[in-house]
Amino acid sequence: MADPGWPGCAKGLKGVLLDLCGVLYDSGEGDGVAIPGSVEALKKLKTSDLKLRFCTNESQAARETFVAKLQRLAFDVSVSEVFSPAPAAVAALKDRRLRPHLLVCDGLLPEFDSVDKTNPNCVVIGDAAEKFSYQNLNEAFRVLLELEKPVLFALGQGKYYKEIDGLKLDVGVYMKALEYACDVKAEVFGKPSPVFFQSALSDMGLQPHEVLMIGDDLVNDVGGAQRCGIKGVQVRTGKYRPSDERHPTVMADGTVDNLAQAVDMILNHRH
Amino acid sequence: MADPGWPGCAKGLKGVLLDLCGVLYDSGEGDGVAIPGSVEALKKLKTSDLKLRFCTNESQAARETFVAKLQRLAFDVSVSEVFSPAPAAVAALKDRRLRPHLLVCDGLLPEFDSVDKTNPNCVVIGDAAEKFSYQNLNEAFRVLLELEKPVLFALGQGKYYKEIDGLKLDVGVYMKALEYACDVKAEVFGKPSPVFFQSALSDMGLQPHEVLMIGDDLVNDVGGAQRCGIKGVQVRTGKYRPSDERHPTVMADGTVDNLAQAVDMILNHRH
Repeated sequence: MADPGWPGCAKGLKGVLLDLCGVLYDSGEGDGVAIPGSVEALKKLKTSDLKLRFCTNESQAARETFVAKLQRLAFDVSVSEVFSPAPAAVAALKDRRLRPHLLVCDGLLPEFDSVDKTNPNCVVIGDAAEKFSYQNLNEAFRVLLELEKPVLFALGQGKYYKEIDGLKLDVGVYMKALEYACDVKAEVFGKPSPVFFQSALSDMGLQPHEVLMIGDDLVNDVGGAQRCGIKGVQVRTGKYRPSDERHPTVMADGTVDNLAQAVDMILNHRH
Repeated sequence: MADPGWPGCAKGLKGVLLDLCGVLYDSGEGDGVAIPGSVEALKKLKTSDLKLRFCTNESQAARETFVAKLQRLAFDVSVSEVFSPAPAAVAALKDRRLRPHLLVCDGLLPEFDSVDKTNPNCVVIGDAAEKFSYQNLNEAFRVLLELEKPVLFALGQGKYYKEIDGLKLDVGVYMKALEYACDVKAEVFGKPSPVFFQSALSDMGLQPHEVLMIGDDLVNDVGGAQRCGIKGVQVRTGKYRPSDERHPTVMADGTVDNLAQAVDMILNHRH
């Protein structure tokens, strides 16, 4: 059977993966602001027969904290539905008996409470934002350079994201900086890592072709999903830029104005 | 005739190129400290028949300032003997009518006094040290992202250098960060750019095979010189690390304990 493409694929869908920042809301001072129509769109999805998980590269705050923020913005989200990089990294740290030096926001520290951090033998870098000072980056660099075999974990590899007051550099930029400084290749947790998408699929009990990813990041959301066989649709909100629609290597299965439009198209094609 | 190698090549030498930081002195609080034996070694070179130029990627201070510092440390150096990245970048900016947004140390600003900086259409990044804050890197990033064709000049591409209190990240690390964030390739001024070495050669009126480069940076000093046909010797001072002697792509023509030893070997082979 021919691939029905977007939005024809909606008929066969059994689940949807949603990015958070730039799809549900724009971050910034305080709680940020909901993107118009997204609260209602999420409600519609939740009352449909589609399974739903949230795949985010949020690494500034612990899950409990940012889920509470989303709830204050009137989004129906619970911690158990959210896949984020820090818990995936914590599992790998424990599995490989690694003791991290953390270059992350204070808000993310609770995710690492159960991890031994004495005498570090690796570095974990998240979206540390204002904590990306020259001094803090030097400290992480020195830990890596003193290791016989440097290990660098990155909580995502995004280039930038949009806050209310403009675009901000993301963790991937500082990951590249440390990679170059120390001749090391980071291990990326979160999108676009295939393992990350697969953990969400397996939690839903679905196959890649039964699921659609909706995000604002062409490379990490859409491209990452596509590499796993999941269709990817980009929204024209958040960090979307018109040049994304002529990107040299990644082409979205569909591009929509916002989450509200995506959800209406999906639900209309199912009836 | 067979290549005499190091130190046999000293017989045919007509000139020497010296790096500054890590060869003459270690930088740090105040003026830094002279590396033992380097003041005397420089004196011996200056009284020999060899021509001498200084090739530095110093981009924290204007030439007048760091030459004055070297003089206070008792080194016989004058501004006209020094090749550094900022003047080379300034010439290119004027030539191409570019107006830079500067991400550099305050101490370097005088080098750019004669350049129009209104309504920037490119970014120049130097070793900004403490000024590499999250906010300042975001500002440079936004200037680049708003340009139809982003232009990024980097004053060197070093990974790190040694100060008295430890290793510090250098401009190349932040260059890589902006390259990744904006999908742009920086134009590098200073070492290891061949144009930069050639400008020093041409000022001396010498051919590559008549000149020897002495530096502490295996890739930028030694490798950069070698790519121009200049022999390169590494000193075991400054940022030197034992692993440099088994580097996968760059092999120095010789490795010596310090400048004093290099100069003694050169002068002994000439008599």
